[in-house]
Amino acid sequence: MKRILICPNAFKGSLDAKAVAGAIARGLRESALECTIVELPIADGGDGSLGVINQYLDAVEMRLGVNDPLGAPVHARYGWHESEKTGVVELAEASGLKLLSPVSLNPWQATTRGTGQLIRNLLEKGARRIYLTIGGSATIDGAMGILDALGVKFYHSSGLVPGPLPSDLDKIVRIDADDALFLLQGLELIVLCDVENPLLGAHGAAAVFGPQKGADEEGVLRLERGLANLAGVVAECTGRSVDDLKHGGAAGGVAAMLHGVLGARLVNGGEQILQWAGFDGALQQADIVITGEGKIDEQTAYGKGPGLVARKAKQAGKHVLGLCGMVSPDLRSYDHFDVVLPIANGPGSLADAFAHTAQNLERTACEVGKLLKG
Amino acid sequence: MKRILICPNAFKGSLDAKAVAGAIARGLRESALECTIVELPIADGGDGSLGVINQYLDAVEMRLGVNDPLGAPVHARYGWHESEKTGVVELAEASGLKLLSPVSLNPWQATTRGTGQLIRNLLEKGARRIYLTIGGSATIDGAMGILDALGVKFYHSSGLVPGPLPSDLDKIVRIDADDALFLLQGLELIVLCDVENPLLGAHGAAAVFGPQKGADEEGVLRLERGLANLAGVVAECTGRSVDDLKHGGAAGGVAAMLHGVLGARLVNGGEQILQWAGFDGALQQADIVITGEGKIDEQTAYGKGPGLVARKAKQAGKHVLGLCGMVSPDLRSYDHFDVVLPIANGPGSLADAFAHTAQNLERTACEVGKLLKG
Repeated sequence: MKRILICPNAFKGSLDAKAVAGAIARGLRESALECTIVELPIADGGDGSLGVINQYLDAVEMRLGVNDPLGAPVHARYGWHESEKTGVVELAEASGLKLLSPVSLNPWQATTRGTGQLIRNLLEKGARRIYLTIGGSATIDGAMGILDALGVKFYHSSGLVPGPLPSDLDKIVRIDADDALFLLQGLELIVLCDVENPLLGAHGAAAVFGPQKGADEEGVLRLERGLANLAGVVAECTGRSVDDLKHGGAAGGVAAMLHGVLGARLVNGGEQILQWAGFDGALQQADIVITGEGKIDEQTAYGKGPGLVARKAKQAGKHVLGLCGMVSPDLRSYDHFDVVLPIANGPGSLADAFAHTAQNLERTACEVGKLLKG
Repeated sequence: MKRILICPNAFKGSLDAKAVAGAIARGLRESALECTIVELPIADGGDGSLGVINQYLDAVEMRLGVNDPLGAPVHARYGWHESEKTGVVELAEASGLKLLSPVSLNPWQATTRGTGQLIRNLLEKGARRIYLTIGGSATIDGAMGILDALGVKFYHSSGLVPGPLPSDLDKIVRIDADDALFLLQGLELIVLCDVENPLLGAHGAAAVFGPQKGADEEGVLRLERGLANLAGVVAECTGRSVDDLKHGGAAGGVAAMLHGVLGARLVNGGEQILQWAGFDGALQQADIVITGEGKIDEQTAYGKGPGLVARKAKQAGKHVLGLCGMVSPDLRSYDHFDVVLPIANGPGSLADAFAHTAQNLERTACEVGKLLKG
């Protein structure tokens, strides 16, 4: 009797983590493999973590009309646990890349204001703790949008800047966070980060993530200067240096600045969610761990949710299997994974693959189950 | 120590059977599964069988300039074993669908004359035995092209028809095979058939295969009448009825008419090639049989090479695994197959998949090997 632990990420753009785990479990049951199955869908703070976190924190999913990255109205989901006074905010819901078409990307105009509006709303509900996941942002605004929505004031040399934009980053000379800090008194703000990149430099927010948010080469350099300038201003005004902070470059500097200005705590999103899921305990009871996400590549082993699951599982001596939408054709082996199988039923369009993710997962898991029978 | 027998078909349009078997074997070796591996690439008389047959018969591949289905010049490959005086002809080489673009399909003009030229050439070499595989034809000419090239004369009511075409089928009133039978004296002509369809009727050559060769609904009816007419003339002239002959409808009636006019022996191509490969003996020595082809679908189990391998292997109590380029996404199980895995590394174009068949086979076989370890 094999004990199987199923811990997949969402297949981004196609199927959420819970549905992925369910499809894998159905396939294994269909294979008639003698096994016990535990399903622990996971996330890592990336775009799509909200549902998984709400599940483990027992939070209710709610919606609020806020501004998208470019100011258009959007209904953003968030989580709320009334008796615990705990809120869950996913930055991508209000300020995510998924809200913009490639041609409308605009790193000089896009802000995290809508995410600030969600946080403000939770404060008005009486939130004592807010978990903020920040993967998938469309913005490199150094959290100015969030901070502005919470009452932080930004100044140019010529005076107050109402509604500061990323194009103002390199002109800020002073901030005033007194009103915001008063508003946030007694609130624990925890930022679940999906990357470890620092704010500045070759591995920083502008250099690494600027291009995917629409910045050209020159734009990256200007954004870098802007973030460096804001970091200097923040250090001067709060005494907190954020230049070398681990995770600081996540979401265009949101992590660094929320820590610098508001004292937010930055944590590894994947580790935090595994903890909520009770992963370590479940791992001890398992022989085989199945994880997966849309794409498994050379980076997965070093990266986010499934890589973390695989590493921990392998360290515990378990058999580790990855299912995914796509691998590179010349894949041979990945650190921490024993077996990696793509689920595609054959060549075809991405749209068609997306439409069949559940079926393909179920089918592949069934064939895996039959192979595991011996 | 697992004993693995690898018996795949070619992946049509992409990789020949020998290369498919080799890629699977490499993947299994990379997996470090403790196993012995025997490679027996197979074919079933379909387009692409020539290389496999030449391998097992130890025949040398040669080439001859002949006419393609529409009369254009084409260099067709064939096999020749000098000391055995045995030739191998693949009809698709001179008369195959692969030689025509979809827009140039023409069931009224396309003939098997080039295949007849190949046979004639072998006779001139002194062939005592010729194996003819007939899958993948572009023609519904009731073998008139082949027979004409061998000297059979076809008559309308108004006299001899030189170079008869499929459009003449319904007007033939008499044939004269005396010259051809003299030429073929002492020759054993064996037709390796890849389908069992009869010449006429709802499962016949015109109804089932006419559309893929370019016949519209009305065309199918006229071809059916033509084949029926020719069958009647042949029965009258030779005493052999071919109406209900198993395999008779293969290659637009080639099988039926070569039997009817020349006394050719019709055999199941898949069975014959398995026999040459020594499959039954190898099967006894195996625990796991891996077969495969470009597409595995609901028809595979009832059909050609891989289906035959799977059925025989399952009947012998072996574990049967199929690797393929594509399955339907809602596949669950197929008769005779324990496990079926598509090899695609993800969504993508057919051209891209074709270009990566060897890599994808090797990778998938490696993952299968690792799963079989434990």
